[in-house]
Amino acid sequence: MSTTPPISAVAVVGTGVIGRSWAQVFARAGCATRLYDRDPAQVKKAVAQLAADLKRDVAEGFETPAEAAACVARVSAQSELGEALAGSGYIQESGPEDLPKKRAIFADLDRLADPGAILASSTSAMDMTEIAAGLPGAPRCLVAHPVNPPHLIPVVEVLPGKATDPEVVSRTTAFLRAVGQTPVLMHRYAPGFLLNRMQAALIREAIHLVESGVADVDAVDAVIRDGLGLRWALMGPFGVGNTNADGGVREYFTRYGKAYIELMNDLGPTPAFTPEQIERWGRATDAMTGGVPRDRLRAWRDRLVRQIRRLKQDDPTG
Amino acid sequence: MSTTPPISAVAVVGTGVIGRSWAQVFARAGCATRLYDRDPAQVKKAVAQLAADLKRDVAEGFETPAEAAACVARVSAQSELGEALAGSGYIQESGPEDLPKKRAIFADLDRLADPGAILASSTSAMDMTEIAAGLPGAPRCLVAHPVNPPHLIPVVEVLPGKATDPEVVSRTTAFLRAVGQTPVLMHRYAPGFLLNRMQAALIREAIHLVESGVADVDAVDAVIRDGLGLRWALMGPFGVGNTNADGGVREYFTRYGKAYIELMNDLGPTPAFTPEQIERWGRATDAMTGGVPRDRLRAWRDRLVRQIRRLKQDDPTG
Repeated sequence: MSTTPPISAVAVVGTGVIGRSWAQVFARAGCATRLYDRDPAQVKKAVAQLAADLKRDVAEGFETPAEAAACVARVSAQSELGEALAGSGYIQESGPEDLPKKRAIFADLDRLADPGAILASSTSAMDMTEIAAGLPGAPRCLVAHPVNPPHLIPVVEVLPGKATDPEVVSRTTAFLRAVGQTPVLMHRYAPGFLLNRMQAALIREAIHLVESGVADVDAVDAVIRDGLGLRWALMGPFGVGNTNADGGVREYFTRYGKAYIELMNDLGPTPAFTPEQIERWGRATDAMTGGVPRDRLRAWRDRLVRQIRRLKQDDPTG
Repeated sequence: MSTTPPISAVAVVGTGVIGRSWAQVFARAGCATRLYDRDPAQVKKAVAQLAADLKRDVAEGFETPAEAAACVARVSAQSELGEALAGSGYIQESGPEDLPKKRAIFADLDRLADPGAILASSTSAMDMTEIAAGLPGAPRCLVAHPVNPPHLIPVVEVLPGKATDPEVVSRTTAFLRAVGQTPVLMHRYAPGFLLNRMQAALIREAIHLVESGVADVDAVDAVIRDGLGLRWALMGPFGVGNTNADGGVREYFTRYGKAYIELMNDLGPTPAFTPEQIERWGRATDAMTGGVPRDRLRAWRDRLVRQIRRLKQDDPTG
């Protein structure tokens, strides 16, 4: 899986929910990981979260106590941004989703970071072309948008700005791969990037099926978790098509193309997300989850995601 | 998981790819399973396939040799439709996807099956209201559309016709649950039912991202298999939303509703599926799979799907 990371020291700037999880990714992979947040309480929270998660991992057999202790020792809380950045080869910024604030943070990072350091933003919505506009270091800036939480879900959407140096892109994807993530390269900006667009497409039709009375929330969810999701944990839509016809993906889309065109043209419209709709979905979801507390659902999800990833690591394709 | 099925003898009528897999579902669950096909060679193939799959399952530790032998013993090849139906409490029809042929088959089934038997069709496209129109036994007819292959993927879309007796619907869902499937109820017909509609929604946007130059086939597929699919193997879109915000699904859709509306309105159009496009996707998929033979990819997929299902069975939600 993950090899020795080509960058040995990393700074995590902004240690809210996303930054905290990034810290785990880097520390677990063996990087010296410096945490900085304008709010020192957030940094403390990040360190405590790492310790708690490692304890759980040891209890569940995902880590040895020695690995966990080594991981904790790699993390340091920094009270000065400059100290966090000095010597760091890769900076992962996870600050507020606000363009002026992002621009101010990137100006600071570009001013204070080592000349060769990569400056990556966790933004899920902004274009690096805008964040880094006018910065001397724009060529070393790019988006590395994780899925929450990145220490569990490996995909990272990598989106260079117009000024980004291609060599920075390839160093970033190599580094992210080395720390155990799955970097995916975007050639240009699109609102929502890749993941949220495909998620929106599926949710739109899921909601349409419920709102038009074809099926209930629990039926729609069951179709995903006991149907499509079992394949999609292993392969994307092209990979699935490729295994769904004896002649592969060409035969699949040739044979079913006409049927897909008809279905696609029949898909539902964008819903209004009215409070009444949301309350109905909420009640149906409550009934579906049967009163299991959300913390327990999340712990279960996280545990099973890690187990599915382990299955895939132990038995890679082909 | 599966309890003793409330129906002890089943007929599988039409033993092509889908019927063969259904035979495994019923036989593994403990039902006397009678196979009939107008082409006796297909029945032989189904019996051989079951034996081969069980042998592999024993080798991979999914069954004991004794379980496998008992399963084989429950299956019988029938050369007469009437014999296959006599004493069968549930009939699963998996014949050609052609309305006049389906109507003729259902007329035969209704004439020859025991009075209390349920008549279920595997059709992925037709409405039982049309298939059973005019049949005396229309109240006992319904659609039970599996995902291919049903012995691996548990979801079954259950769609009553206008004349279907609600008691037949509830007996069918109870029976399918007892043989280890996940029946999902549709309240009314929609082209593509639930699964293929949601699949089409995701594929449409996946193709759009590739065709508009935002990302390549392997990036789009990676976003699903190392991102969204890891959650969707465990929860559908409402369940995911419910765990993605501290306040649950209500907070999730309230907070992100506006962003989703913008994204949904920006999703791509239906592609043309031209031969040139399909050939490009084919070449990109070949590169992505790196020349691993399709049979090996499918065996890997089937093995991992079974392992993911086992994880979920061993550690059910909450």
